[in-house]
Amino acid sequence: MNLLLLEETDFIDADHVRLSGRRLAHMLDIQQVSVGDTLRVGRIGGLMGRGTVLELDNGSALLAVDLSESPPAKLPLTLLLAMPRPKMFRRILQHCATLGVPEIILLNSVRVEKSFWQTPFLQPEVVRENLLLGLEQARDTVLPTVRIEKRFKPFVEDSLPGIIDDRLALVAHPGDYPACPRGIDQPLTLAIGPEGGWIPYEVDKLIEAGMQPVQLGERILRVETAVTALLARLF
Amino acid sequence: MNLLLLEETDFIDADHVRLSGRRLAHMLDIQQVSVGDTLRVGRIGGLMGRGTVLELDNGSALLAVDLSESPPAKLPLTLLLAMPRPKMFRRILQHCATLGVPEIILLNSVRVEKSFWQTPFLQPEVVRENLLLGLEQARDTVLPTVRIEKRFKPFVEDSLPGIIDDRLALVAHPGDYPACPRGIDQPLTLAIGPEGGWIPYEVDKLIEAGMQPVQLGERILRVETAVTALLARLF
Repeated sequence: MNLLLLEETDFIDADHVRLSGRRLAHMLDIQQVSVGDTLRVGRIGGLMGRGTVLELDNGSALLAVDLSESPPAKLPLTLLLAMPRPKMFRRILQHCATLGVPEIILLNSVRVEKSFWQTPFLQPEVVRENLLLGLEQARDTVLPTVRIEKRFKPFVEDSLPGIIDDRLALVAHPGDYPACPRGIDQPLTLAIGPEGGWIPYEVDKLIEAGMQPVQLGERILRVETAVTALLARLF
Repeated sequence: MNLLLLEETDFIDADHVRLSGRRLAHMLDIQQVSVGDTLRVGRIGGLMGRGTVLELDNGSALLAVDLSESPPAKLPLTLLLAMPRPKMFRRILQHCATLGVPEIILLNSVRVEKSFWQTPFLQPEVVRENLLLGLEQARDTVLPTVRIEKRFKPFVEDSLPGIIDDRLALVAHPGDYPACPRGIDQPLTLAIGPEGGWIPYEVDKLIEAGMQPVQLGERILRVETAVTALLARLF
């Protein structure tokens, strides 16, 4: 935890917060803070700054906070992701929040197993919890949005062209395609397939909607690795 | 498993292998292969090709193999990695093998907890098992070498300059440094610190040994994410 994130309900007035639960345990057990110590803090969706510990016991902590710093810029990106296997999904949410993805759309694909959509990790509070873990790591306060699109064809035909809006749009897919560009400095819609890849019909539909296929070389990456590798190369 | 890796002891003659254990279970349960099916196979440290299932039961599988394809090229890289937390260490070994790192040196740092060196995941057979998982994913056959250097100062003073050998060498560290370069096409030695980063003394020693400090932006990445992000950006 590189940043202590503050919920609206933590604020007892404009400059003071009272914390308990996981964040208090982390302060006590890992950071081993004492009264008078200052910590990096950030208001979820808002500014970052310093918090000074005024009171501390096993039940709660009272901090005076001074928030004046903007969170880091997000990537100019909409990430379209075939719904990953649940265990990997949690880590991908964390990675995406850490790397500065502002908008994630979870999409169906023939190679997405039906059971993936049943995971409790898709419950909004679990999604939020994992995104917060990623923000804490990166020192960011702004939660990415996560949208679920279980029907591939209507989404790609009806919604995707409006999302792309004539800007750069790439679908990462192994094959005889141009290499993924590097260090682009423009808004992007990026589609990343499931383990095993999009099926040819899906690639064709994504291309029809305005996406250009690109590849990352002959090594086959896990989705989790591909997300980080693509974003690091593109931005 | 995108490639079935074959051990020397699997070969009953030059063109036939007999498999059991984890790989047989994977063939039966996940890939659901039958007699007559062909699979991608590779000889550990050697060539890749196709294997045809000749016999198959719950005890073992007999395959005829035809190996003629070279494994993919490795990155021209020596990766110097502060010994990670054990759970992350296993995943990093897998990532490194998948991404084509040929040589990993595990180094001590003030911020490496002493207990990290006691992990059973450092036992050679566990290291090998995790590297094989990464190779299977990427479709590669050549195991990276892993070397352990528990003494920072003598290694950095006495061995590192010879490893760098006047070629490009970078240490990734947050701070007021140049941005990490992109798409380099030359041999590289890259040092990645522990969670919390190298201490200033360590950065100074790495610079003295011939490394240039570079940074990846204001977001703080987990070591696991940083490894993938740096390699994807650099190569």
